[in-house]
Amino acid sequence: MKRNFKLAKSLLATAILATAGTLCAAEPIQPIEPVKEIKLAQVELGKKLFFDPRLSKSGFISCNSCHNLSMGGTDNLKTSIGDHWQQGPINAPTVLNSSMNIAQFWDGRAADLKAQAGGPIANPGEMGFTHKLAVDVLKSIPAYVIEFKLVFGTDEINIDQVTQAIAEFEKTLVTPNSHFDQWLLGNKDAIGPDALAGYKLFKESGCVACHNGPAVGGNSFQKMGVVEPYKAKSPAEGRVAVTGKDADRFMFKVPTLRNVEMTYPYFHDGGAQTLTEAVDIMGRLQLGKKFSEAENAQIVAFLKTLTGDQPSFRLPILPPSTDKTPQPKPFN
Amino acid sequence: MKRNFKLAKSLLATAILATAGTLCAAEPIQPIEPVKEIKLAQVELGKKLFFDPRLSKSGFISCNSCHNLSMGGTDNLKTSIGDHWQQGPINAPTVLNSSMNIAQFWDGRAADLKAQAGGPIANPGEMGFTHKLAVDVLKSIPAYVIEFKLVFGTDEINIDQVTQAIAEFEKTLVTPNSHFDQWLLGNKDAIGPDALAGYKLFKESGCVACHNGPAVGGNSFQKMGVVEPYKAKSPAEGRVAVTGKDADRFMFKVPTLRNVEMTYPYFHDGGAQTLTEAVDIMGRLQLGKKFSEAENAQIVAFLKTLTGDQPSFRLPILPPSTDKTPQPKPFN
Repeated sequence: MKRNFKLAKSLLATAILATAGTLCAAEPIQPIEPVKEIKLAQVELGKKLFFDPRLSKSGFISCNSCHNLSMGGTDNLKTSIGDHWQQGPINAPTVLNSSMNIAQFWDGRAADLKAQAGGPIANPGEMGFTHKLAVDVLKSIPAYVIEFKLVFGTDEINIDQVTQAIAEFEKTLVTPNSHFDQWLLGNKDAIGPDALAGYKLFKESGCVACHNGPAVGGNSFQKMGVVEPYKAKSPAEGRVAVTGKDADRFMFKVPTLRNVEMTYPYFHDGGAQTLTEAVDIMGRLQLGKKFSEAENAQIVAFLKTLTGDQPSFRLPILPPSTDKTPQPKPFN
Repeated sequence: MKRNFKLAKSLLATAILATAGTLCAAEPIQPIEPVKEIKLAQVELGKKLFFDPRLSKSGFISCNSCHNLSMGGTDNLKTSIGDHWQQGPINAPTVLNSSMNIAQFWDGRAADLKAQAGGPIANPGEMGFTHKLAVDVLKSIPAYVIEFKLVFGTDEINIDQVTQAIAEFEKTLVTPNSHFDQWLLGNKDAIGPDALAGYKLFKESGCVACHNGPAVGGNSFQKMGVVEPYKAKSPAEGRVAVTGKDADRFMFKVPTLRNVEMTYPYFHDGGAQTLTEAVDIMGRLQLGKKFSEAENAQIVAFLKTLTGDQPSFRLPILPPSTDKTPQPKPFN
């Protein structure tokens, strides 16, 4: 607990410095800023790749299958469905605002979006492919070859470019303009009295120790089960898998609470189906606090004000395979 | 054969009458017309439903999973992947221009798009759900309840409305403005000499007997394997399953050739991976004609001019489930 509060204090100080002079300098949560600079050609290519199931062995699973941009950048399942309907070990975190994360995956094993993007493609339990085979597919499709050449200036396609383009697209997936952000920016009518009371509770109870900054989380690793142990439905042990340090057992990246109304179910194992349940468990296990029904409802009302403008773009049309394209193998 | 030509003659006559006075009255293929009248509110609702995997038992499979609008309205797999990764018995036909089909499904068992739309939802091998459970999910989501009320004017949601809205959305999925249509409409530079030679062969060899009209198919049932029997990889027996008549064994709806470059693999069993292979097999089995390599390439060049403007719309954002929404069951 002490540790968490120390961290929170330092984060608060950073946040205050970073946003000094803005309307919301005194708040531990800052508005999401719109994307100000982006490599547009990479974004357009990355958008196609994000939706292209040919990056999977089966030809059926794309990034968008589990990070569905119609559904808050998640699959809304406890754990995801992978190649041959394998049950994943962990809940698919939202891709929305993921560029703000301190690192990627629940255990932070990828430093950034680019490092993350290659993971699921080659994970036998997810897209079940290899980087080489995925690149071979792209190389066989003239429209992709031309687009990679236009974007990266070379005749070669490699996995580094693939993940770079996907990551650049993912950087566009921010969700500014939530009711809460409008409130932060000075529109005091943007959220109702319940949500405001919920925000007050959220701050005073200590939730904000971990859930702070523009993403309302995503910027630290914390233990799941501080006051009481969490009985996880997943075998995942968190950050210890990356660091090997016993102290990192059950340390997980704090998830963003942006768009949390859309990203159910909650926790790394999807163990909480509703926000009410998640708030209750978090209060008891992390803060040693049992929220009353009314308090819980107020916090939930606040959390629902964190839903921002969802990414809005035309469904990409993918260039067709050719006679030379290696065929997908869905059933072997 | 005689029968096919008789049919072709009658279809040709109809087509000529129907388009008399237009630039392309003399051709057996007519341009796709843009959608002229549509129930727009139903379309917008139907678009959401088309993309909503909560209409499946698993919460993972939507209409768009197998009729992927990024990929020519198909999954580009020989046979589709259903609930729990079940292998479907038949190739998923494209949803593009499907409003022009004489009936829906390969065996024509659904009279129209509305009748079709309910099929996969309740098929244990596809979305694996029931109409009642799918409607229960929608009823639990206030934003859907409001939208259904706005669209249909009642507080009730039923499967009839669901399939009506999906069908209305599907009516918008036409692909006008292909190079071939531009040629039909008078732009003689719209297709090259190979494609033109291919079209001539397509007409003179008899392909056009079945593949005619605006959809270049979709308007009759024909036997798969007229001159030589087709060794299908699928157990499907075609229209006999609907009519019970032995004469309808291996009678399948002639698929549209619109956007055929994007809708690989081909035939009801996905047995032909490439257009070259499909043209060769069709020539031999249906027409008793072995196309030379050059002829085949010309026909393929023609077929590639049938790719039209793909449906272009913003990815729909789906309203989130609520605490009352029945949870998906992906793993049981």
